[in-house]
Amino acid sequence: MTQQTPRYQPQPVTEIPRFAGIATFMRLPHVALEEAGDVDIGLIGVPWDGGTTNRPGPRHGPRQMRDASSMARLYHHVHRFSPFELANCADLGDSPVNPVDVDDALKRIEAFYVDVVDRDIVPLTAGGDHLVSLPIMRALGRNRTLGMIHFDAHTDLRDENFGGFKFTHGTPFRRAIDDGVLDPKRTVQIGVRGAVFDFDDREFAKAKGLRIIEIEEAVALGPDEVMAQARAIVGDQPIYVSFDIDCLDPAFAPGTGTPEIGGFTSREAQFMLRGLRGLNIAGADVVEVSPPFDPSGHTALAGMTMMYELLCVMAERVGKQEG
Amino acid sequence: MTQQTPRYQPQPVTEIPRFAGIATFMRLPHVALEEAGDVDIGLIGVPWDGGTTNRPGPRHGPRQMRDASSMARLYHHVHRFSPFELANCADLGDSPVNPVDVDDALKRIEAFYVDVVDRDIVPLTAGGDHLVSLPIMRALGRNRTLGMIHFDAHTDLRDENFGGFKFTHGTPFRRAIDDGVLDPKRTVQIGVRGAVFDFDDREFAKAKGLRIIEIEEAVALGPDEVMAQARAIVGDQPIYVSFDIDCLDPAFAPGTGTPEIGGFTSREAQFMLRGLRGLNIAGADVVEVSPPFDPSGHTALAGMTMMYELLCVMAERVGKQEG
Amino acid sequence: MTQQTPRYQPQPVTEIPRFAGIATFMRLPHVALEEAGDVDIGLIGVPWDGGTTNRPGPRHGPRQMRDASSMARLYHHVHRFSPFELANCADLGDSPVNPVDVDDALKRIEAFYVDVVDRDIVPLTAGGDHLVSLPIMRALGRNRTLGMIHFDAHTDLRDENFGGFKFTHGTPFRRAIDDGVLDPKRTVQIGVRGAVFDFDDREFAKAKGLRIIEIEEAVALGPDEVMAQARAIVGDQPIYVSFDIDCLDPAFAPGTGTPEIGGFTSREAQFMLRGLRGLNIAGADVVEVSPPFDPSGHTALAGMTMMYELLCVMAERVGKQEG
Amino acid sequence: MTQQTPRYQPQPVTEIPRFAGIATFMRLPHVALEEAGDVDIGLIGVPWDGGTTNRPGPRHGPRQMRDASSMARLYHHVHRFSPFELANCADLGDSPVNPVDVDDALKRIEAFYVDVVDRDIVPLTAGGDHLVSLPIMRALGRNRTLGMIHFDAHTDLRDENFGGFKFTHGTPFRRAIDDGVLDPKRTVQIGVRGAVFDFDDREFAKAKGLRIIEIEEAVALGPDEVMAQARAIVGDQPIYVSFDIDCLDPAFAPGTGTPEIGGFTSREAQFMLRGLRGLNIAGADVVEVSPPFDPSGHTALAGMTMMYELLCVMAERVGKQEG
Amino acid sequence: MTQQTPRYQPQPVTEIPRFAGIATFMRLPHVALEEAGDVDIGLIGVPWDGGTTNRPGPRHGPRQMRDASSMARLYHHVHRFSPFELANCADLGDSPVNPVDVDDALKRIEAFYVDVVDRDIVPLTAGGDHLVSLPIMRALGRNRTLGMIHFDAHTDLRDENFGGFKFTHGTPFRRAIDDGVLDPKRTVQIGVRGAVFDFDDREFAKAKGLRIIEIEEAVALGPDEVMAQARAIVGDQPIYVSFDIDCLDPAFAPGTGTPEIGGFTSREAQFMLRGLRGLNIAGADVVEVSPPFDPSGHTALAGMTMMYELLCVMAERVGKQEG
Amino acid sequence: MTQQTPRYQPQPVTEIPRFAGIATFMRLPHVALEEAGDVDIGLIGVPWDGGTTNRPGPRHGPRQMRDASSMARLYHHVHRFSPFELANCADLGDSPVNPVDVDDALKRIEAFYVDVVDRDIVPLTAGGDHLVSLPIMRALGRNRTLGMIHFDAHTDLRDENFGGFKFTHGTPFRRAIDDGVLDPKRTVQIGVRGAVFDFDDREFAKAKGLRIIEIEEAVALGPDEVMAQARAIVGDQPIYVSFDIDCLDPAFAPGTGTPEIGGFTSREAQFMLRGLRGLNIAGADVVEVSPPFDPSGHTALAGMTMMYELLCVMAERVGKQEG
Repeated sequence: MTQQTPRYQPQPVTEIPRFAGIATFMRLPHVALEEAGDVDIGLIGVPWDGGTTNRPGPRHGPRQMRDASSMARLYHHVHRFSPFELANCADLGDSPVNPVDVDDALKRIEAFYVDVVDRDIVPLTAGGDHLVSLPIMRALGRNRTLGMIHFDAHTDLRDENFGGFKFTHGTPFRRAIDDGVLDPKRTVQIGVRGAVFDFDDREFAKAKGLRIIEIEEAVALGPDEVMAQARAIVGDQPIYVSFDIDCLDPAFAPGTGTPEIGGFTSREAQFMLRGLRGLNIAGADVVEVSPPFDPSGHTALAGMTMMYELLCVMAERVGKQEG
Repeated sequence: MTQQTPRYQPQPVTEIPRFAGIATFMRLPHVALEEAGDVDIGLIGVPWDGGTTNRPGPRHGPRQMRDASSMARLYHHVHRFSPFELANCADLGDSPVNPVDVDDALKRIEAFYVDVVDRDIVPLTAGGDHLVSLPIMRALGRNRTLGMIHFDAHTDLRDENFGGFKFTHGTPFRRAIDDGVLDPKRTVQIGVRGAVFDFDDREFAKAKGLRIIEIEEAVALGPDEVMAQARAIVGDQPIYVSFDIDCLDPAFAPGTGTPEIGGFTSREAQFMLRGLRGLNIAGADVVEVSPPFDPSGHTALAGMTMMYELLCVMAERVGKQEG
Repeated sequence: MTQQTPRYQPQPVTEIPRFAGIATFMRLPHVALEEAGDVDIGLIGVPWDGGTTNRPGPRHGPRQMRDASSMARLYHHVHRFSPFELANCADLGDSPVNPVDVDDALKRIEAFYVDVVDRDIVPLTAGGDHLVSLPIMRALGRNRTLGMIHFDAHTDLRDENFGGFKFTHGTPFRRAIDDGVLDPKRTVQIGVRGAVFDFDDREFAKAKGLRIIEIEEAVALGPDEVMAQARAIVGDQPIYVSFDIDCLDPAFAPGTGTPEIGGFTSREAQFMLRGLRGLNIAGADVVEVSPPFDPSGHTALAGMTMMYELLCVMAERVGKQEG
Repeated sequence: MTQQTPRYQPQPVTEIPRFAGIATFMRLPHVALEEAGDVDIGLIGVPWDGGTTNRPGPRHGPRQMRDASSMARLYHHVHRFSPFELANCADLGDSPVNPVDVDDALKRIEAFYVDVVDRDIVPLTAGGDHLVSLPIMRALGRNRTLGMIHFDAHTDLRDENFGGFKFTHGTPFRRAIDDGVLDPKRTVQIGVRGAVFDFDDREFAKAKGLRIIEIEEAVALGPDEVMAQARAIVGDQPIYVSFDIDCLDPAFAPGTGTPEIGGFTSREAQFMLRGLRGLNIAGADVVEVSPPFDPSGHTALAGMTMMYELLCVMAERVGKQEG
Repeated sequence: MTQQTPRYQPQPVTEIPRFAGIATFMRLPHVALEEAGDVDIGLIGVPWDGGTTNRPGPRHGPRQMRDASSMARLYHHVHRFSPFELANCADLGDSPVNPVDVDDALKRIEAFYVDVVDRDIVPLTAGGDHLVSLPIMRALGRNRTLGMIHFDAHTDLRDENFGGFKFTHGTPFRRAIDDGVLDPKRTVQIGVRGAVFDFDDREFAKAKGLRIIEIEEAVALGPDEVMAQARAIVGDQPIYVSFDIDCLDPAFAPGTGTPEIGGFTSREAQFMLRGLRGLNIAGADVVEVSPPFDPSGHTALAGMTMMYELLCVMAERVGKQEG
Repeated sequence: MTQQTPRYQPQPVTEIPRFAGIATFMRLPHVALEEAGDVDIGLIGVPWDGGTTNRPGPRHGPRQMRDASSMARLYHHVHRFSPFELANCADLGDSPVNPVDVDDALKRIEAFYVDVVDRDIVPLTAGGDHLVSLPIMRALGRNRTLGMIHFDAHTDLRDENFGGFKFTHGTPFRRAIDDGVLDPKRTVQIGVRGAVFDFDDREFAKAKGLRIIEIEEAVALGPDEVMAQARAIVGDQPIYVSFDIDCLDPAFAPGTGTPEIGGFTSREAQFMLRGLRGLNIAGADVVEVSPPFDPSGHTALAGMTMMYELLCVMAERVGKQEG
């Protein structure tokens, strides 16, 4: 980052209060991708849930998270900086999708993100169900293999669902490893819990050297030690950070399709996300926010705050690189 | 039907009150299809919404309608008969589906309904989005062409969505006509309203001789005259009756994915359904009940009552045929 | 009523807006029964639903109706008078109840209403489930037999539930006739609809000379003719008016335990209640408002407005008698 | 309008489905006022409810109506034209407001609308509470006196609230008449109902020659005759059309701050709005949509559909003038 | 348990996804009690809340918990076994009840459970209000005295309510001790908190040697030590485990009738339930889930997961005994 | 306090259950201020949210908190005393307000509280938005400077909003310090968190010697140490205690206008409030409970329980002073 303030700043609230105006992520300008040449970090929605095997709804996630993100402000109270001063951030709108065809949707999303990556924009995505991480990682991992820090109640490492169907929100990271865009040895999953149909995912992870920190271990270690281990696993090569809102306990995030009780508090999750400072984040997402299952809307508030926490650590790194 | 009472009867409420017990359609016994040889009318759920272009949720419809249908009783207060005394009715459970693949889902549903039809069971279906009508009609129409009385805010006669995708909840009846299972000349659509992207459906209908009674005309005619015209159009050959819950005004059915204001009241719809008495109904459905969008649950109550209205007219005809 | 303004008036809204203050019925003073000697019409809650065979909740009705009734104002826009200028009205609080014992609850309620009647106060009650009408009518009918105009989806004329249990919200008027406090020949039920377990209630009504105007007939007659017939049936002797909120369609009153679609609109109901002008109303109630089943709260608004409509016609008669 | 298609069109739904993308009114482009030189009709939000004497919330109306308006399509099914082909329409964003100061807010809103009017843009506004109509009418009426067709449960003709406060959502049209921007003789109010604190508004109306059609009269006349009378009253001079969502029955629009039961159905309201065709509408609004009081969201759907009905009749006139 | 897999297994999700099909507990077969001879553990609903002194609704608990329990899977992620491989489990439907008579209801429930016990089935119950534990314990304790581990915000040791009424959801364990089916010296209550009307329950407990671990002490001890003490108190004789969902904080379980803030997190509760491994559990329940007070449904999810945690420890013991 | 029991006691629940009756704070008698001469602690509502810059609704807080407070009982389970035995407590109703004018509202509230203070009544207030603390403190601090213990996610120390507006719910304590009624050196803020527009509040606090314990520090210290520090800061001079419900995490208090994730649990907050024992509390409030944003109502339950915790420590001190 140069000395000067980045071009795009959140709309001030002096005339248009936070609840007002057209809802964009964090009140940032909406910039069409083709005009986003100088954007460092692009906030993008992927309004799609065609990979959902349970309760649908995350297709409505980006819009509700934009609405909730109006509550965002500028300076992080712990980091004491504004991400908007460190990197040029904009709302790039939603990726094209197709709600009635999985293959076509995956193609549309990947193509959009290839365009994003080609413009050197680091994407911060609001899903969508967890399958949306796959085409994003495919775009990000075309010329490199990514590590990953993954917060989730589930491993999403299944091989298939419904008798042979390979593309669901339970399979994205198995596919990403198959495709060679995700390096299992530089991958850690945090917060996994809940009963399973089988232990195929655990065995796959073990065979591949992928580290799973189940919730019981995470609680015993505490946020600081969890993140110390995670940082050691991923190193300083490019990583993807995927935050499935169901890593939180349903008390903190009821609006999701496959809730599992016994999860993280919002506070624990925030403490962990702050532990990402300095890492080489090539992209990140917050997925599985499902508005129809949250009458109070505080899931979207949690989701957008996690986006803000991610944006801070991403902008700091971007700022240092550019500075 | 013989003189004797049909084998299956709703569970009495003397010990297990209506809100209690395992929820089946109208408290009927749950009978596996392979053991349903003597069933006349099968109540079936199709928990699928993979054809939905807007707000999802009808995959949860059958379960919520089963829950609501516990409120059903026996004798229709106008007809003064019990459908359960006229025909042997049972809950046949849900059709197999696949939430992540449209083609596979359509195949699974059609195969299930072929099995239903082969057993001479008349299906009364709780959807699911409106695309579920297509595989059902394909099964019912293998050896005959069906007429149809169709209550809906939309014609569902689009040719495609999202640039070439032929199977969505906006296209089922275009496909059914393409397939030759639906005779457009014996088809009437009642309650159509709301803005459109184009008039392709109206032109298609006109070209094919399919009658559309828009809501303004339906209101002007009144329920009795609407049904007199509908009966004249479909005649006494086999017909399908499809009731999209969004034919009702959102005040009466908020829980649906593509609501259009200005629709029928429940009372008007009931009066029209009673006008089906005596028709040759090969199958019927109530679709597009979407529980996540109805916090009060009265959409499912409306849906299940419409199923009961349909069951009465279907059972009466079955009873007469068998009697 | 003398020339002067009655003692109790709704709290003015100049300093304490309508949404504010301690919630009493229509912002009237809360007066203990023992100090209510000069009250003409007493607004009373009966927070009890121990007779409910389906979904519970009307025990919360009085409190929510008090809350909603803050929206009440003074002058009826059609009658062009204020009931509070014609009769001395007060909130007498809630009747004692017992949520865990039906017999004891019925005794407590009757005793309270005997006290009300002994003070020459005309009760206007917010239920509670419909069984609360029984002890009220027993108190009102100790020395006289009442006629009744009864708005409801159900006749509430069952003889028993659950194998011999005589006191449920489906039996109050059978019991009242058994007890001799209700004269079936001067009774009319309006809006009855929905499937039934049997026609025992219709046969009982027919045998006793009780007139049932089912919804289909009521719609055909129209509000004016319905009320003309009702007035002819009840004459000018003392009557009870019982308004079960489920006479309204669930679109207008979702918050009730046994909803039946196809009911009255609020407008139709208001037009009918205005047709009570001049009748000799010994007491009235609005029952079966069940807040837990109405997330929007507009059922309570409908309930309280029906109470206001009733209060107007009751106050006018009281005013004339006293004037 | 010239032969060519207007510049701004709703975003197509082939890639970004209706539930997706950044929410603007009817998926129209968001155009800053200073760049809106060629806009004919500007859709504008006024996110403000500082004049609300009862339940707050309409400040959230514009955003929820933008969200709901994604469901809008192009061609009106009765008029058989697209307003977007007849006039150049755009979302001009929200007017500046001030949630903590009534005077300042009124100034900010008026200044914004003066700017709108100076650019020859006809404003179609989403409120906001009903006081927002005042600064809009002041801007529209600087050089002319407006007539008005006003759909509402209330006259909003009070002189003050809370002991001398002149600017509340109960007073806007009294103020507009005081200011000389509204001509009471060319004003008609339709659907007024509900109890009142006094008849001051009726007396004021009578004295000024302002016509009030209460709901009972409107029902008796029917939509066609109501509109015939309204058209006769306002003539062809410029008028304002103000649609308070509470003119609808709470079953059709629960999400509003001062609901009154017994109102119009959505269908009746649509029929009346279509009766505005050809009138000289200088501006229009839909106000008092209060999202926090509508858990199902169908109030906003009703509100946005009324905006679309208004837009159609406004665009037709604009198109003819320009054509 | 023998080597072979138990007869009844949850319905697989390959064709009927988890949200689909007829809702039984954990997708297990529904087996009528008279045909349940080989069932080891019976999952049973008691849809009754006639003992409720506050907000009603638990009568709807079993059905909503069945619905939520569709989300259950097979293998416990910590125990690494499937309870369905260790014991033959089935859904035995709901116990008969009577919503309008406490005495009759208690008799019906006890009779049903006597039948269960006579068939050597260990019951795992979904309530219902907490009074349902009494007839269950009476059935289980006919020939033996039970110990108990009881998770609850309240002691439920009151002697009476409402002036002499002995059977409410505040009195079950006082009655069970009176009846001699519960041994207070082998009883421990965990999580008790909140203000009280008097300390009669504490004094009774003290006098009887019943151990109460209030929430403050439980937090100070931590889950492991709490359970170590609980195990020491109950020993290896038969015990009942009763889990009142209100032991959880309302953030984790809002849907209950007598919520008390400051309770356990779901995670703490799960950790404690896992500490039951190896104990001699004669029966268990999860009670006071009240769907009408939980718009998001996550209370039922918590309740069903607690049932699954209980089922695991119960099945393991059953498996060992039979093995 | 003398030996004898205070005059006013909560209504017993033997005849009128907790959910019944007219809702007052903790079922205490409603006593008009002019008749409250012997009241020690007055529970008062301030139904006003005119200072709200975000989502409105706290004007409805007092009424919903009264409703929820029916669940209150007598004896604190840790303190083992009843506040109602230690001090004479009553519900003094709501302060006059003005929803459409900030200045007038502040004057009305201050005047009411001056009257309260003049009668030597210690006020315990249910807000209202946080600006209501200002006129209360002005009344309490007329002749003395107050210290303060303040639980909140925000400092509420802004100087202005919307370009020069000095009175909003973000500015009350800046104004109180300006006015000299609040001593910043004896003030501590606990639980502050979330992003900020700038650090002006932190700098102001630092300059004035006001201690802010952000959430991260509070978690690290633990409740006991936080309160030890707080007590050291405020000493034994008179203090105000202000509890903004948004100090709790939104999982525990979703119903508030400016939620910030990562907050306190209810349990942590209760532990801290118990640490106020013995302090010289001149007045206290619980503010920002916003019912429209909490469909489950458990925010009001949390709010009323915090009021009860405050009442206990206040009554104990009052009791000792009077004893």
